[in-house]
Amino acid sequence: MASNSFGKFLKLTTYGESHGVSIGGILDGVPPGIRLDLEKIQIELDRRKPGQSSIVTQRKESDIVHFKSGIFEGVTTGLPIGFEIQNTDNKSKDYGHIKDVYRPNHADFTYDQKYGQRDYRGGGRSSARETASWVVAGAVAKQLLNNVKFTAYTHSVGSLQLSEEDSIDFDVIEKNPVRCPNENRASEMEAFIKKIRKEGDTIGGIVKCIISNVPKNLGDPIFEKLHANLGKAMMTINAVKGFDYGSGFDGISMKGSEHNDLFNTDGTTKTNHSGGIQGGISNGMDINFRVAFKPVATLMQKQQTINKNAEEVEMHGKGRHDPCVVPRAIPVVEAMAALVLADAFLLNKSIN
Amino acid sequence: MASNSFGKFLKLTTYGESHGVSIGGILDGVPPGIRLDLEKIQIELDRRKPGQSSIVTQRKESDIVHFKSGIFEGVTTGLPIGFEIQNTDNKSKDYGHIKDVYRPNHADFTYDQKYGQRDYRGGGRSSARETASWVVAGAVAKQLLNNVKFTAYTHSVGSLQLSEEDSIDFDVIEKNPVRCPNENRASEMEAFIKKIRKEGDTIGGIVKCIISNVPKNLGDPIFEKLHANLGKAMMTINAVKGFDYGSGFDGISMKGSEHNDLFNTDGTTKTNHSGGIQGGISNGMDINFRVAFKPVATLMQKQQTINKNAEEVEMHGKGRHDPCVVPRAIPVVEAMAALVLADAFLLNKSIN
Amino acid sequence: MASNSFGKFLKLTTYGESHGVSIGGILDGVPPGIRLDLEKIQIELDRRKPGQSSIVTQRKESDIVHFKSGIFEGVTTGLPIGFEIQNTDNKSKDYGHIKDVYRPNHADFTYDQKYGQRDYRGGGRSSARETASWVVAGAVAKQLLNNVKFTAYTHSVGSLQLSEEDSIDFDVIEKNPVRCPNENRASEMEAFIKKIRKEGDTIGGIVKCIISNVPKNLGDPIFEKLHANLGKAMMTINAVKGFDYGSGFDGISMKGSEHNDLFNTDGTTKTNHSGGIQGGISNGMDINFRVAFKPVATLMQKQQTINKNAEEVEMHGKGRHDPCVVPRAIPVVEAMAALVLADAFLLNKSIN
Amino acid sequence: MASNSFGKFLKLTTYGESHGVSIGGILDGVPPGIRLDLEKIQIELDRRKPGQSSIVTQRKESDIVHFKSGIFEGVTTGLPIGFEIQNTDNKSKDYGHIKDVYRPNHADFTYDQKYGQRDYRGGGRSSARETASWVVAGAVAKQLLNNVKFTAYTHSVGSLQLSEEDSIDFDVIEKNPVRCPNENRASEMEAFIKKIRKEGDTIGGIVKCIISNVPKNLGDPIFEKLHANLGKAMMTINAVKGFDYGSGFDGISMKGSEHNDLFNTDGTTKTNHSGGIQGGISNGMDINFRVAFKPVATLMQKQQTINKNAEEVEMHGKGRHDPCVVPRAIPVVEAMAALVLADAFLLNKSIN
Repeated sequence: MASNSFGKFLKLTTYGESHGVSIGGILDGVPPGIRLDLEKIQIELDRRKPGQSSIVTQRKESDIVHFKSGIFEGVTTGLPIGFEIQNTDNKSKDYGHIKDVYRPNHADFTYDQKYGQRDYRGGGRSSARETASWVVAGAVAKQLLNNVKFTAYTHSVGSLQLSEEDSIDFDVIEKNPVRCPNENRASEMEAFIKKIRKEGDTIGGIVKCIISNVPKNLGDPIFEKLHANLGKAMMTINAVKGFDYGSGFDGISMKGSEHNDLFNTDGTTKTNHSGGIQGGISNGMDINFRVAFKPVATLMQKQQTINKNAEEVEMHGKGRHDPCVVPRAIPVVEAMAALVLADAFLLNKSIN
Repeated sequence: MASNSFGKFLKLTTYGESHGVSIGGILDGVPPGIRLDLEKIQIELDRRKPGQSSIVTQRKESDIVHFKSGIFEGVTTGLPIGFEIQNTDNKSKDYGHIKDVYRPNHADFTYDQKYGQRDYRGGGRSSARETASWVVAGAVAKQLLNNVKFTAYTHSVGSLQLSEEDSIDFDVIEKNPVRCPNENRASEMEAFIKKIRKEGDTIGGIVKCIISNVPKNLGDPIFEKLHANLGKAMMTINAVKGFDYGSGFDGISMKGSEHNDLFNTDGTTKTNHSGGIQGGISNGMDINFRVAFKPVATLMQKQQTINKNAEEVEMHGKGRHDPCVVPRAIPVVEAMAALVLADAFLLNKSIN
Repeated sequence: MASNSFGKFLKLTTYGESHGVSIGGILDGVPPGIRLDLEKIQIELDRRKPGQSSIVTQRKESDIVHFKSGIFEGVTTGLPIGFEIQNTDNKSKDYGHIKDVYRPNHADFTYDQKYGQRDYRGGGRSSARETASWVVAGAVAKQLLNNVKFTAYTHSVGSLQLSEEDSIDFDVIEKNPVRCPNENRASEMEAFIKKIRKEGDTIGGIVKCIISNVPKNLGDPIFEKLHANLGKAMMTINAVKGFDYGSGFDGISMKGSEHNDLFNTDGTTKTNHSGGIQGGISNGMDINFRVAFKPVATLMQKQQTINKNAEEVEMHGKGRHDPCVVPRAIPVVEAMAALVLADAFLLNKSIN
Repeated sequence: MASNSFGKFLKLTTYGESHGVSIGGILDGVPPGIRLDLEKIQIELDRRKPGQSSIVTQRKESDIVHFKSGIFEGVTTGLPIGFEIQNTDNKSKDYGHIKDVYRPNHADFTYDQKYGQRDYRGGGRSSARETASWVVAGAVAKQLLNNVKFTAYTHSVGSLQLSEEDSIDFDVIEKNPVRCPNENRASEMEAFIKKIRKEGDTIGGIVKCIISNVPKNLGDPIFEKLHANLGKAMMTINAVKGFDYGSGFDGISMKGSEHNDLFNTDGTTKTNHSGGIQGGISNGMDINFRVAFKPVATLMQKQQTINKNAEEVEMHGKGRHDPCVVPRAIPVVEAMAALVLADAFLLNKSIN
């Protein structure tokens, strides 16, 4: 079944396995006449790229995106944008040991059950390498929505988290490898991740995302609610286990009289428990949401597991992996959010 | 933009406003040859129906579903099932006072901004009355997946919640108006909701859902992951602010070595932090997820707000509303989950 | 599989069988703020209705459309429009004789093969009664495109056809039961159809359609070409066997130097072999196309056929049928063309 | 708007312009476990390739397809197949003369109107070079349906056509450059095309296609009729003006009593005016249809036209073009037919 497309109006379709020739995609529905800043797109890719700091996987990929179509003399033509990222550092021999083995909490067992076989090298299509293509598409979407600002950051690593009292400085985010907007917390989190890595273990965390300068009227009632599409987009990211927006899981213990966002006369609201979305439609206030990431499944430890023949085997993690996926997930969260908003933005034009 | 359809293969399309002639829909893609138990469908509708207990809205709707097509001599024909539920107790005069007023945390403001007008009576299309149509479709989906068991229940009301030590008895769920699987907690929650109602206030809560006897291989990699579609489905339900599955938001502080679900030789796992889904595909273990509901926005209290002319006005809630949406949301959560699984089930057939 | 929706942005989903409770649909994506003229919609339905003249089926249906939603105080709300047409004169007992028999050139055999059973009464879902719902939706689409003029007419009945010399007067179309724009040809055709009916036989014909005042820029390159969507729409109508547009099948024997439409300096063309569409996109010239209808399969004659048990049986047509489907197909052709153009019109807005 | 995807279940998405870096696509939905014969795919591409004989365009493209994903150890994985064809012989300087000029009957004017600009080199995305990607996808679809036989051939070139008396030998098709199944007619057609080319002119023609060994039950009622999807697919091919199937445009002058296909007791029919499809669903008989191609718009002659500034200009065709598109269209017709049938085949599995 064709399940590799995302979006209705601005549609991203992707292909590729972690250790195949390349990964890439087609971004269809970009309006004509946008002068694309290709350097900005590459910068987003570099934010996601492996090997960028000491707390992420040491796989080395240059991750240069090559555009094939849809851009003429630097400007979008309204026609599909094909793009490709070569896989260069695909040390497939690292993966021979998992050919017949099902790694716990990976997609090995389910892919094999569903498809009768799998490209086991580096996780094949289930690898988070796929998200590089999303980042390319999201970077184009950001330029399509050039006044909207997407800021994701690390809110928690394990139980280390930003508290209410911690100051938040968005300018700090890209200046520390954890991508936390508070330098002190960033240092603690970095040290914690290093400790976890030394143990051959992994840890989860929470990404928070704030979208500001949001146009009104994005999202549709009933089955295309903006927050439902954001939720699907976030749940689509590898290792994500949860999503909430606005007051979220914390809102359940508030009374309605506390939770309701009272209006100012200009239509803005005094509080924003709604998270910028009411009835599924953006109201112009900031959109904010949280995304929960589980600890990475690949450990640099011995683990008991089974193989294709239903035999118990012992495996030891090899390959190059992230001890905590959160820092590199930041640009992915922003990219997926940008794709959702750009889609809603184009759809909304039809009624005005 | 056409945004009133849900599902790809098993597609529900709906229409209707809270105080119009009727609500209803078309369920397209039901396979032929299923002998439908219409009584079971009505029972699901009755579980969602207003006026069923003292802790829910006192609107009285008989909520009888009328089928128009797609069933011949009691058996599905493979052709679309049209259905309709009349709106009978639509006391629209209750709503004249909100014609020009934007109720806080409702869709009034955003609908007006987007569409230039709205059917304000009872919330129009943004009313949760819409979910009755989803329950009809979900009840058909349940019969399509007749071995799969969907059990949703109230896990929290405000900060009252089931604790780890509380016994869980699914047979108790339908025997108390809160739909909590523990009688003691149910009583506390019921008392709490009554107190909140007396204050003219409202409260949120958490629904938990367990799906057992799940077929393997449901869901597709990348953009049709089963949990991403479940997440979208749940975020689609009125008043929902958050979703997580498996270890969810709690999983972020676990180490990978604790979180990984080790295999038994039969492919089942010793723990189920994965929540029954790995790589976006069901592995045959129970699926479990949580859904966070905010407190209902309509209060039986005075509130400051604004009107269409951007003037400050004072409003007092009228009409008939739920002090806590969670008990009536239980069958809606199950219905949407059933639609997602049935869609994935039909899609999966294409590759086998 | 869900296959009962038409259109992407303006999406019609339908349900219903010829002899069920009712037929109807949901038209989703109509922009807000259109004051609908409901009388005009009913007039279109009346043009398609059975029993309107002596050369069409004598089934008597009042065919009154009932709207359920999406219209508030006479104006569209941007939300889905549900509608229903009751089946009143469904003499199902007329059809008992075909319960186990496969009528030649009907869908009886293929539905039974595919679905394992069928609602045989009046053809069930395969009946052209379905097209009444399309006419309702198309009438709304016409009002959405209120400057565009859709004119379909009977061009041929069997080998009787309008010749190059025949004058064409669109005002004549609705004044004769054949819906031919030339009175003399109309009389000949009417007499011919009566003769055919007397023989218990049927005959085919060609409908021509001219769309004028077409906005530029409708249709998209590659897989959403305007003429390809028009072609699919026409091939979707019951009994249609062929479609061409512009120079069509006659254009194959022209040389490029004759066929090319030379430009005037205002961008219009001196000839219109392109049929108003170039590269899949409307150029503002009239769109013209032809639709070929086969003779109706139901005969008022004895025919040899087979039954479910693969036995040869003799059947004699009963029920009430059209000797020539073309006159009643005129409003259906216009309706489907209006749906295609309205969809393209809404889609096109996203890029401007 | 995203309009570069074809198919629902087996979905082809394409990108690329005639003179860009490359063209290519992603074929999503191919079932796992098919051992692909890559050579057969290349053979189909070679059938479509420019420069293959003296009666087609002399552009030289090696047209080697490179697969990027979805095939592991020679076998499909069920995951998307990315592929690319380099543009090597793109003599863009040949096209500088049309930068500001609108060629008659091309997409130049409409693309410029719609998108505000265009990649004019070689027609950009509107070039029939795009169809090379369709041939790749269609060749995979053929292997997915490995018992079904698709045979397209040249039926007419201008007014030269196969007559009822002409013998038809499918083995002859690939042995003459016209791809006509009768050697005598092939020679006449070839001579005629050469004469037309010498005049700097072009000519149209008709392709006929026979599909045999068709599985029963392909296609769905109402809006996914098999012949409607075939019609859309054919109308999608560059230069196509018409489509009919079974009795087609000739069937309109037959009486129902002549046209009805009487059953044999095994469910086959004695005649096949239905063209293998009844009620939109294949009945197992051969599917046959016709496709009408207009004369190519690019002439090697002087033509009057206009430029962007609405000035009259004179242009003379340059570049390398086909005097008659029909011979090279043969594999494209087969490819698109294969994509439609494969999609219907996968969809049909869901109900059995």
